[in-house]
Amino acid sequence: MKTLDWNASHYLINGKPGFMVSGEIHYFRVPKTEWERRLKLFQDAGGNTVATYVPWILHERSEGDVRFGDESYRDLEGFLTLCKKLGLFVVVRPGPYQYSEMLFDGLPGWLCQDYPEILARDVKGDVFRKSSVSYLHPLFLEKVRIWYRRVCPLIAKHTLSRGGAVAFVQFDNELMGVHDWFGSWDYHPVTMGFGQEGGRFPRFLEQRYSGIETLNDSWGAELSGFLEARPLVGKPTTTGERRRTKDYQDFYFGTVAEYAEILVEWMREDGIDSDIVHNSANPYMNSYFLELTDRLQAKGIRFILGSDHYYNLGQDWDQNNPTPKYAAKCFYSNEMLRLMGMPATIFELPGGSPSDWPPVAPEDLLCSYMLNIALGMKGSNYYIFTGGPNPENIGCFDDIYDFQASVAANGALRPTYQSLKTFGTFLQENAWLAEADQVADFQLGLVWEYSRSKAYFDQCSDLGFSGEETWTFFQKGVMMSALCASHSPSLVQVDRETNPIPTNKPLFVALSVALSEHGQRRLVDFVERGGRLIIAPVVPSFDENLEPCTILADFLGSPTFAKNRAGFARLNVGPVKNVLINGDLFLTEVLPEGAVAFAEDEHSGQIGGWRMKRGQGEVLWLGLSWKHAMLTHSTMITWLLHEAGASNKAVDCDNPCVWTTLRSTGERAMLFAMNLFSSPMNVTISVGSHGFVLPAQSVRLAPMEVRTFEISAP
Amino acid sequence: MKTLDWNASHYLINGKPGFMVSGEIHYFRVPKTEWERRLKLFQDAGGNTVATYVPWILHERSEGDVRFGDESYRDLEGFLTLCKKLGLFVVVRPGPYQYSEMLFDGLPGWLCQDYPEILARDVKGDVFRKSSVSYLHPLFLEKVRIWYRRVCPLIAKHTLSRGGAVAFVQFDNELMGVHDWFGSWDYHPVTMGFGQEGGRFPRFLEQRYSGIETLNDSWGAELSGFLEARPLVGKPTTTGERRRTKDYQDFYFGTVAEYAEILVEWMREDGIDSDIVHNSANPYMNSYFLELTDRLQAKGIRFILGSDHYYNLGQDWDQNNPTPKYAAKCFYSNEMLRLMGMPATIFELPGGSPSDWPPVAPEDLLCSYMLNIALGMKGSNYYIFTGGPNPENIGCFDDIYDFQASVAANGALRPTYQSLKTFGTFLQENAWLAEADQVADFQLGLVWEYSRSKAYFDQCSDLGFSGEETWTFFQKGVMMSALCASHSPSLVQVDRETNPIPTNKPLFVALSVALSEHGQRRLVDFVERGGRLIIAPVVPSFDENLEPCTILADFLGSPTFAKNRAGFARLNVGPVKNVLINGDLFLTEVLPEGAVAFAEDEHSGQIGGWRMKRGQGEVLWLGLSWKHAMLTHSTMITWLLHEAGASNKAVDCDNPCVWTTLRSTGERAMLFAMNLFSSPMNVTISVGSHGFVLPAQSVRLAPMEVRTFEISAP
Repeated sequence: MKTLDWNASHYLINGKPGFMVSGEIHYFRVPKTEWERRLKLFQDAGGNTVATYVPWILHERSEGDVRFGDESYRDLEGFLTLCKKLGLFVVVRPGPYQYSEMLFDGLPGWLCQDYPEILARDVKGDVFRKSSVSYLHPLFLEKVRIWYRRVCPLIAKHTLSRGGAVAFVQFDNELMGVHDWFGSWDYHPVTMGFGQEGGRFPRFLEQRYSGIETLNDSWGAELSGFLEARPLVGKPTTTGERRRTKDYQDFYFGTVAEYAEILVEWMREDGIDSDIVHNSANPYMNSYFLELTDRLQAKGIRFILGSDHYYNLGQDWDQNNPTPKYAAKCFYSNEMLRLMGMPATIFELPGGSPSDWPPVAPEDLLCSYMLNIALGMKGSNYYIFTGGPNPENIGCFDDIYDFQASVAANGALRPTYQSLKTFGTFLQENAWLAEADQVADFQLGLVWEYSRSKAYFDQCSDLGFSGEETWTFFQKGVMMSALCASHSPSLVQVDRETNPIPTNKPLFVALSVALSEHGQRRLVDFVERGGRLIIAPVVPSFDENLEPCTILADFLGSPTFAKNRAGFARLNVGPVKNVLINGDLFLTEVLPEGAVAFAEDEHSGQIGGWRMKRGQGEVLWLGLSWKHAMLTHSTMITWLLHEAGASNKAVDCDNPCVWTTLRSTGERAMLFAMNLFSSPMNVTISVGSHGFVLPAQSVRLAPMEVRTFEISAP
Repeated sequence: MKTLDWNASHYLINGKPGFMVSGEIHYFRVPKTEWERRLKLFQDAGGNTVATYVPWILHERSEGDVRFGDESYRDLEGFLTLCKKLGLFVVVRPGPYQYSEMLFDGLPGWLCQDYPEILARDVKGDVFRKSSVSYLHPLFLEKVRIWYRRVCPLIAKHTLSRGGAVAFVQFDNELMGVHDWFGSWDYHPVTMGFGQEGGRFPRFLEQRYSGIETLNDSWGAELSGFLEARPLVGKPTTTGERRRTKDYQDFYFGTVAEYAEILVEWMREDGIDSDIVHNSANPYMNSYFLELTDRLQAKGIRFILGSDHYYNLGQDWDQNNPTPKYAAKCFYSNEMLRLMGMPATIFELPGGSPSDWPPVAPEDLLCSYMLNIALGMKGSNYYIFTGGPNPENIGCFDDIYDFQASVAANGALRPTYQSLKTFGTFLQENAWLAEADQVADFQLGLVWEYSRSKAYFDQCSDLGFSGEETWTFFQKGVMMSALCASHSPSLVQVDRETNPIPTNKPLFVALSVALSEHGQRRLVDFVERGGRLIIAPVVPSFDENLEPCTILADFLGSPTFAKNRAGFARLNVGPVKNVLINGDLFLTEVLPEGAVAFAEDEHSGQIGGWRMKRGQGEVLWLGLSWKHAMLTHSTMITWLLHEAGASNKAVDCDNPCVWTTLRSTGERAMLFAMNLFSSPMNVTISVGSHGFVLPAQSVRLAPMEVRTFEISAP
């Protein structure tokens, strides 16, 4: 029996480590007469898995009239059987939502039009979109149950365990997108139970606060009971309002988790025993799925959260092609997924674009694939591999769903087909890479909460450096400077996980004024055990709920500092003179006990960085946040990491515009060098540490070229 | 005597048509011992003009102590003399503002710190930045007068008329940037004279409205006199508030014009007889200078407004390299400058970037130069050609002002130097191109007011399709679709100018619900005289001040239409089926007298486009606004233009990703083909109309390549 399995690191194809190479092929768009030819084209391009939506809008045209197999474009089972025959695994996505450029996002029109009470509401109680529903609305769930009752048993007949092709099943699609992009979180009063005895929101608050006095203290409110509690209307401006908004966000993410759990339970009830998957629509949303992942894992569900990594879907996107900004996003996204204990999977890797223009060029596409592999991707799904005509009245704008795909809607091969084939061949020839990990020379702290703090903690001159500012600094400052300086960071969780942080490499953490008690204890523990910690630009004085928490500060001797509000400053960090200050600068006149200064503002004479031994380890504090712009930034980060005891760089590279990464199984390694600019780049690269040696190579990389160098251990 | 002259179309170098090729070289940064070598390097790269700031901050370190020539970095005259000796023209920019990454933007620190009363205020009366001044504040003007009294006579000694090198003098720098980017327009109560008898703002209103009742009617206010009038705080939401905000904006632009006129008068008083120049910081600001240009021209000042065309200045910019979006911006910017009666001049064409990263690559840089020439640039200034160390306490972040320039701060040549040289050689060998005009196959209407309507007319469900929405549609819809469809538009002014619009080519105008009476009359006149006019998506019912004005609507038989608010529509335009509707769609059930429908929504059966003969001409109305995304958009615009009688395309090109333009003197022509993507592009191009023939050429363009083909008239 063929198997598609996985562990925390990678996929196992028929028991052997390898990459899941999936392609989205819709049985309802590709004409049935073409199915086999297209599937074989996909296999020729190195594919081993197929993904497809099962559109509710198509199979239940009018309420109660659910059809499968009556028309060839509704022949789901025929498609699954053919995939099985060809030896392809299948990822099935039966909704309720599909998106996929369908009317009503793939929900039946009758559902949205005849039952407007199920539509999501904004904080003022207004509907904001005709096909954005409130996931947990009882009537919506009732209708979904009926749909699932019909579609799930069909899928269940084809799972791997029953000798079928279905390896994974996805509930819904890009959850929260229909709320986030078109209005706000959902505030449906019935679903959320505002003011209702036993309602979800009052229950959530009761669990979080126990007594109403605690909530009143936290929110700065004077409620007589939880039933009176309502989410804040408008942007929060006080600490109490920030907590209130965060509470609602945490609650909302919890409701999405509850919804997911219900869908999965129904799948199980109807016989689907496959592993379950879901796709975050964008790296910035990955952390919105923490509650959901915890909840499914707690239920013993084998679950893979993936993400979608597009670089251009139309004229309004910033970039037309893969760029360093795109790569940085892919890097932290893949790392997040890895840290969640899953093989990093990109359930929508660009196979094309819904727009005919800007173009999807073969070189750009291959570049996006290779850079994702270089940065940790272990499984992927081309969205889409091939399309075809939309059955009547499902497409939201075009009769032909072409998507600039590598195999056009009419079946013709596009030049991009060769990109898929080149990539597929690379993965087949280098299946060993599936087991390879990144060789890192330092650890970069991931504070999950910062990546979801925009709504409640974006800027706050009252409290200090915010979570959202820190998230920006993490991405555009520390990470960019490190990558441009040819460092190789690996991400490590600060505010989740219980395993101690390894102390063999230094740890750089961008910190806001808020970090959970757990996170603060983990950092203290890391240093106590001998870790060398670099923090910037502030030391937290609150926990993640913005309640006072000074565990780390206490450990550091309660350091003080203040934001520099003088017109200008001139900062020297160690030997690095006049570092560009294009973020916030925090300075102090007082060194904490046992600290030694290493950074100073020449103008004021104040201290902008100090270091101190603590426990078996050491802490370096730098009072600067920045956006990578100048050579001084990379020089500074290299100096800081060196001072914190970073061993040799994993890779040496003399061009800050060529990013590199080394992936290794311990026995074999592969060096990736990426030119993510539109001009050729000259670079000299070498590897001479961590057990691998590649003598200096001077190469010229074409625009969008990702060059690989295989290295064996000596 | 060497001369640098100009007319409405191009520059004249020593009497002959040619390009002004200027490079920014700061005598105060480049060491004096290096001046001559660097200037010669610039001449070797094809340069004929040098531009330099004269920083007030450097020459008047403490108040009253104005110095020239005491240190080599203050030796302005030595520099001008050397330029003259080498045969280089000079553009001198004595401020008051410089920017140029200087402390206080180049103003003396004592000025900003000792006289805080001169600082600009936001609408609430608060200072928003330590070096953003209120231009017309009497105390600021007094200090500027003293500075000008010292610096202008020095410059005057070196003007062309006196045998010197100074061809042009610039007042201030990127006017309004210090307000717009850091806060808002300036609302300084003293400068603006709110509530003051004879104050500027009450005087402006009195001039505009004559009586207070008229103002009250317009604003929906109940003021007893003009002295009570104040600008609106916050975003306008009613029509009256929109008018009030627009009044303030018009007034503010007028104050900037008054400031410019004062500076120019002082230059003249102190003997500077050169022509005057200024640079708009960005194409989106070009139209903010209409009042200023009118005012200087009315005074008989020979004045050139230029613009700045950067594609990347740091990590936060959308693109790393020239892209179609950048080219579209350059195109409308160059066209705007041409329409103002000046040779299109880019006073800051990228010579580098203030950031070390992202990189300024040689291929990208050359591409940006060539595409600007292709799109109408006639003169330019590399910002910067070469830098050097900042004299102490003038640089706002770096000791060395390097800017990734083609000649590094230390004097070494970078690979980008070759790009400048290649470009300089091209311009020298093709000086005839200076006289060439674009060969256009249709006219695209420019409504200046739309490009400055953001603050008062961005979205307005009450009134209908707004000015700002129209400006977006103009750029991202009509222009993009036309360029992708291989059409060649030239811009024509709708709401300014008095010459009738030529009727030999069709005119496409994107219209909001507001257009000045003058503009409406011009369109009617165009059609009366036989012009063929395409308008979309609405017909105006207001003038530019949002007062009722239905001249065009009356001419068209008072057409009615309403925004489609159904969930979906399916629009067929002529033979083009199911055009993607990604903007607003306006539909009607009633055809105006004499109109014939050509577009229909299949779902509702309503009409989305009609045509009618009027006078000697014809009008086609399409009820759609869009952003270019699909082939249907280009096909539709081609069909519309064909129906409106467009003759053959200037250029035929089979790849929508390769943009082309043909520039001709009537006797010679040059075809430019541009690949503004990071992947190579294959394309077949031919020219077979407008008197020029180039047989079909199949070429492969490298990323960032601009290929030229010279064609002689048969």
